[in-house]
Amino acid sequence: MNNIDSNNLSSSDDSKSKIIDNNGPLNHSSSSSSSSTTTFINQTNSQTDSLIPHSCNGRSEPPMPWFGMDIGGTLVKLVYFEPTDLPPDMKTGETEILGQIRRYLRSSSSYGKTGIRDIHLQMDNCCINNRIGTLHFIRFPTSEMSTFLKMAASKGLASTSSTICATGGGAFKFEQDFQHECRLQLHKFDELDSLIHGLHYIEASNPHECYYFENARTPSMAMKRPYDFSRPYPFLVVNIGSGVSILAVYSPDSYRRVSGSSLGGGTFLGLCSLLTGCDTFEGAIKLAAQGDSTKVDKSVRDIYGGDYSKFRLSADTVASSFGQMCSKSKRDQVTKADLARATLVTITNNIGSIAKMCAISEHIDRVLFVGNFLRVNEISLKLLAYAMDYWSEGQMKALFLEHEGYFGAVGCLLELMKTGNQ
Amino acid sequence: MNNIDSNNLSSSDDSKSKIIDNNGPLNHSSSSSSSSTTTFINQTNSQTDSLIPHSCNGRSEPPMPWFGMDIGGTLVKLVYFEPTDLPPDMKTGETEILGQIRRYLRSSSSYGKTGIRDIHLQMDNCCINNRIGTLHFIRFPTSEMSTFLKMAASKGLASTSSTICATGGGAFKFEQDFQHECRLQLHKFDELDSLIHGLHYIEASNPHECYYFENARTPSMAMKRPYDFSRPYPFLVVNIGSGVSILAVYSPDSYRRVSGSSLGGGTFLGLCSLLTGCDTFEGAIKLAAQGDSTKVDKSVRDIYGGDYSKFRLSADTVASSFGQMCSKSKRDQVTKADLARATLVTITNNIGSIAKMCAISEHIDRVLFVGNFLRVNEISLKLLAYAMDYWSEGQMKALFLEHEGYFGAVGCLLELMKTGNQ
Repeated sequence: MNNIDSNNLSSSDDSKSKIIDNNGPLNHSSSSSSSSTTTFINQTNSQTDSLIPHSCNGRSEPPMPWFGMDIGGTLVKLVYFEPTDLPPDMKTGETEILGQIRRYLRSSSSYGKTGIRDIHLQMDNCCINNRIGTLHFIRFPTSEMSTFLKMAASKGLASTSSTICATGGGAFKFEQDFQHECRLQLHKFDELDSLIHGLHYIEASNPHECYYFENARTPSMAMKRPYDFSRPYPFLVVNIGSGVSILAVYSPDSYRRVSGSSLGGGTFLGLCSLLTGCDTFEGAIKLAAQGDSTKVDKSVRDIYGGDYSKFRLSADTVASSFGQMCSKSKRDQVTKADLARATLVTITNNIGSIAKMCAISEHIDRVLFVGNFLRVNEISLKLLAYAMDYWSEGQMKALFLEHEGYFGAVGCLLELMKTGNQ
Repeated sequence: MNNIDSNNLSSSDDSKSKIIDNNGPLNHSSSSSSSSTTTFINQTNSQTDSLIPHSCNGRSEPPMPWFGMDIGGTLVKLVYFEPTDLPPDMKTGETEILGQIRRYLRSSSSYGKTGIRDIHLQMDNCCINNRIGTLHFIRFPTSEMSTFLKMAASKGLASTSSTICATGGGAFKFEQDFQHECRLQLHKFDELDSLIHGLHYIEASNPHECYYFENARTPSMAMKRPYDFSRPYPFLVVNIGSGVSILAVYSPDSYRRVSGSSLGGGTFLGLCSLLTGCDTFEGAIKLAAQGDSTKVDKSVRDIYGGDYSKFRLSADTVASSFGQMCSKSKRDQVTKADLARATLVTITNNIGSIAKMCAISEHIDRVLFVGNFLRVNEISLKLLAYAMDYWSEGQMKALFLEHEGYFGAVGCLLELMKTGNQ
């Protein structure tokens, strides 16, 4: 994948077609689901013999299990491909360890104290490298990496001779731990390359992946609607993890990192934990939902007594985030929920504002917000939709994807396929 | 003053020359101090007769006392012009109330519990509207406005028939209070117009107003140096008060508000007060000076184990502000000083980042940071200097002005002069 650091927007048609050939998405857009079903059937029928691991029909494929792993600053995102294309009598061909891993992962939606499988995101009948199967999406805190490695060792992952593909900073930070604890060599990939790769694959595979909010200017009436992403270029990707990266994407394999911010999901949870004593993202979001940020922030009304109309700043615009908290008597009046809400609104609006500036300078009007900060976080989704619509006077659109934070891990899984085809 | 909302950069040569004529700065740049002294003497000699209030030499001037007031979200900035051009025997011409106000303001550098006169900023031998005098710079919290109004009433300000010129949001919010408590009609001016107007006046009047940091990339060796601002256009003004406004300035009276942020000085003090229990800006800054933000933030090193070199992010770059605070054990290890420092660094870097983006999109390489957030705040000054130099690879320069937050009030005082000339 090309990374563009200057304005040289060279794209490789070669690698573009490679991606599509290798990972043949079932559907290219939400409007083509019936024809893509046909594609799926054709592919399955013609590839039945290719289902036995390693190399069945003369083509090599990487040994199972197939994982893609994105080790971020806060969360590890793990994507697991479970093949479902083996006829029942061929399942005996599955090694004992592969079966054990498969059954362990399927047996529950939670692992240990903190591992979670996002069942609602599960994608059945996925085609990867001409295999049909189910994609499972699993996450756990990066702070639990040593527990994960012990578990992986105890399940015999090392003896499967599978290649572990990993991306995110942790692929570098924990490389030696993988080697020492599990005798596994990591294949490392760049996280932004993986993100873009995975994003294209999932968006093309899932008919209702992309959505936006209708009536974004009236948050109480804002309705989630599918968005036809079949002609997406150029678009901006705002990836909100612990921090924020902003990419301008010009084709499936041509993008540029245009900006970033250290005020991201980690800032929200870190500040919220300090201010309210909450200690989970879900807890912080629930608290925020009950709060009122206008008791914490200083608005244009608080300073002007009304609008500052010369510069189109309405009375409700936040003039100074947390600005009322300079006063002790105001601090005594706010609740933890108010503080959580203000933290969420502050971080979200700052990201929206930076994204808008990038979109303007890149002359791009579609802005795709992704990353686990958006998980179970309707407040931020609607705030971003509102902000992009309002500040651009309807010229820009905030878009979102269902698989929020898993694209890096998916992109990594797709890279694994290349290791089998070499 | 023209405000440009589109890309129409129309400037009025008329009003440009008006500003210079009316408020004749003593010095135009730091390199012309000797010739400007001559100018000063010439002006003084030729204007001796104009010193008696109201209209002496056929030209009208507004009645004294001359004040300019900028009522912001957190602080009120008050500029007072004390005439020094009356020969001793003419001081008796000063009314009793004028003398009382003058003596009260000069008698101390603090007023009531919270009013402060910034003596180190005092400007002697200033020429305003052909009068020579001393400019005094006074500030107090906006929350003390009612105390100020009572004091103003008790000192007989209403009976001086002086016009009170005010800017900032409070000029609108407190307009009726001025009327009810002091029987004073406010003349209101736009705060950004006043800011630009005052900034040009002070910069041109004070030879060492503008400075930058030499060796900005090595903060321990960064040295404050005078900057020759005689050919400044275009430049960016980043005004950091409770919130942030960013203006692109193309000529003395042609500018455009290009962006803003609600994460400003009010956010720093509000958050710092919540996190550390401090309750003054000075206290928060002192605390921050003793702290270590790297214990609070998550760096690229914390996530990658080293640099993320593909995108030129060094190991020390902050990846997620407050990112380490998601962990309870890390929260238990940090001090209040660490939290104060992290708050300061987070807010400052966010402003620097937004300023850099604006400078790029406006094709401007001189960025002037002003506003009271920078007062007694060397950490932020050096951080901004470092950030602008580093991220632009030496292409952009962060500039600063000695009178940090007083330009709106000065601009307002200059507007008062126009009321006397009408």
